Amino acid sequence: MNIVNQPTHANHSLQMLSVAFQGEPGAYSEAAALAHFGPDIRTRPCESFDLVFSLVESGECERGLVPIENSLAGSIHRNYDLLMRHTLHITGEEFLRVRHCLIGMPGVKINQIKKVISHPQALAQCEGFLKRRGFASQTAYDTAGSVKLVKEGGDPSIAGIASRHAAQVYGMQILEEGIEDDTANFTRFLAISRQPQQPEGEAKTSIVFTLSNQPGALFKALSVFALRDLDLTKIESRPQIGRPWEYLFYIDFLGAISDLPCNNALKNLEEFAPMLRVLGSYARSKPIE
Amino acid sequence: MNIVNQPTHANHSLQMLSVAFQGEPGAYSEAAALAHFGPDIRTRPCESFDLVFSLVESGECERGLVPIENSLAGSIHRNYDLLMRHTLHITGEEFLRVRHCLIGMPGVKINQIKKVISHPQALAQCEGFLKRRGFASQTAYDTAGSVKLVKEGGDPSIAGIASRHAAQVYGMQILEEGIEDDTANFTRFLAISRQPQQPEGEAKTSIVFTLSNQPGALFKALSVFALRDLDLTKIESRPQIGRPWEYLFYIDFLGAISDLPCNNALKNLEEFAPMLRVLGSYARSKPIE
Repeated sequence: MNIVNQPTHANHSLQMLSVAFQGEPGAYSEAAALAHFGPDIRTRPCESFDLVFSLVESGECERGLVPIENSLAGSIHRNYDLLMRHTLHITGEEFLRVRHCLIGMPGVKINQIKKVISHPQALAQCEGFLKRRGFASQTAYDTAGSVKLVKEGGDPSIAGIASRHAAQVYGMQILEEGIEDDTANFTRFLAISRQPQQPEGEAKTSIVFTLSNQPGALFKALSVFALRDLDLTKIESRPQIGRPWEYLFYIDFLGAISDLPCNNALKNLEEFAPMLRVLGSYARSKPIE
Repeated sequence: MNIVNQPTHANHSLQMLSVAFQGEPGAYSEAAALAHFGPDIRTRPCESFDLVFSLVESGECERGLVPIENSLAGSIHRNYDLLMRHTLHITGEEFLRVRHCLIGMPGVKINQIKKVISHPQALAQCEGFLKRRGFASQTAYDTAGSVKLVKEGGDPSIAGIASRHAAQVYGMQILEEGIEDDTANFTRFLAISRQPQQPEGEAKTSIVFTLSNQPGALFKALSVFALRDLDLTKIESRPQIGRPWEYLFYIDFLGAISDLPCNNALKNLEEFAPMLRVLGSYARSKPIE
């Protein structure tokens, strides 16, 4: 486990892959980065998603890891927009189960807790638990940040809600684990890099394209995949504000652009898609069931 | 303008349509309800989306109005889940431009402001403005709620971020309007009711269905619309956690289920969709460009 606040050995640190993520040290994104790249990386917390993309683009960090969709909350359009704006490549995906923990000061017992602080979304996802326990709740800027606040305040009656990883990073105590009301809570993350990578094993490709708004346009677009027996794993349309006749489509399909059928399908799609952008081909990962 | 905290005339109130929404009085959802149903309604603020659905199902409120997708943040899966769980019908849609206002105490000038409070998403959407002005920011539970907090606190150096409607509801002052960084910020709301309604004018129908995960399954599903020249306005896939071989699809298409081609398309789709649910047919609305 790489605790970001600890000093790392200079020589060692030079060889370690640097990975930017959005959030405070201990964030779910950092846990996903460690799961994806392994424990021997140098993680770099960023204030915003924009900064994650900028650091990877400038070469200051070798990789970035950003959430792209959540099973409860849906796609994170902001990161699709940033993928469009920058010329980076997706080099991998990681599914992380969001398992919220109630985290308090070391030595504290759960029945001492009176108030719970966390990001509004985390509080909402644990609403049933908080009600059953009769805890008051208050919003904080993010999940790992709430644990940091609890630690700095030192009040034994206050707990935060964050990942197991956050408790480890701040040396705090997990009072209860898995307190979310709906356990079917997964986030899919994408690894981004300046250079594309040739995927090993089963591959997936992510693309974005536009279509003119005509009946059957999407049917024609999907035919380029169906005719070649290519399996889609995600499709999403998004109206383009200010361009009422054009839609953005996000599609993921199985296969790498280096495979001939995939390459042909994309050439075929290019014939009638006003805009087509390949975001990357990468090794497929599967959500933990 | 119906200010929810004001006492309403009893006889009048009996005739007024009651509409449940999630949030504090003055919320964007309330503004959307007034835009959709007109000013002569009795709005009912609810703590949660669940409560909105329950009040409509029990008949305590005649309609509900819930956000279903935002141009920046994507679909609100929670409300799709609630549409699936309850047997209510969509009877209309409303597009609302999210135009954030900086709101302070009456008589205050913008250069007196030092700290701005609001929902984290609203603060994030106004990040550029806040930085340029050098304002400190702090999270609050929701947008309209932040205006309520500013009013209760009475501190002239604190402002909230919320809708124009919120300023009116709380009798507070708009210091600047349209402070969001990205003006292409729209939310689409759905009106829900216990009884289906026959749509007038151009109609739209929303459906949810599952498909077995086979190459070309979605292509076959879309063919039932393409063969009948039915135009899709939205498509989204969502993996079902715990059911790795089944996907949920959300589709909106132009036409009402009472139209023969639409009815035939759905009968056709039923032949190979393990689950198909019509959420409602309603008059189409268009986003303001």
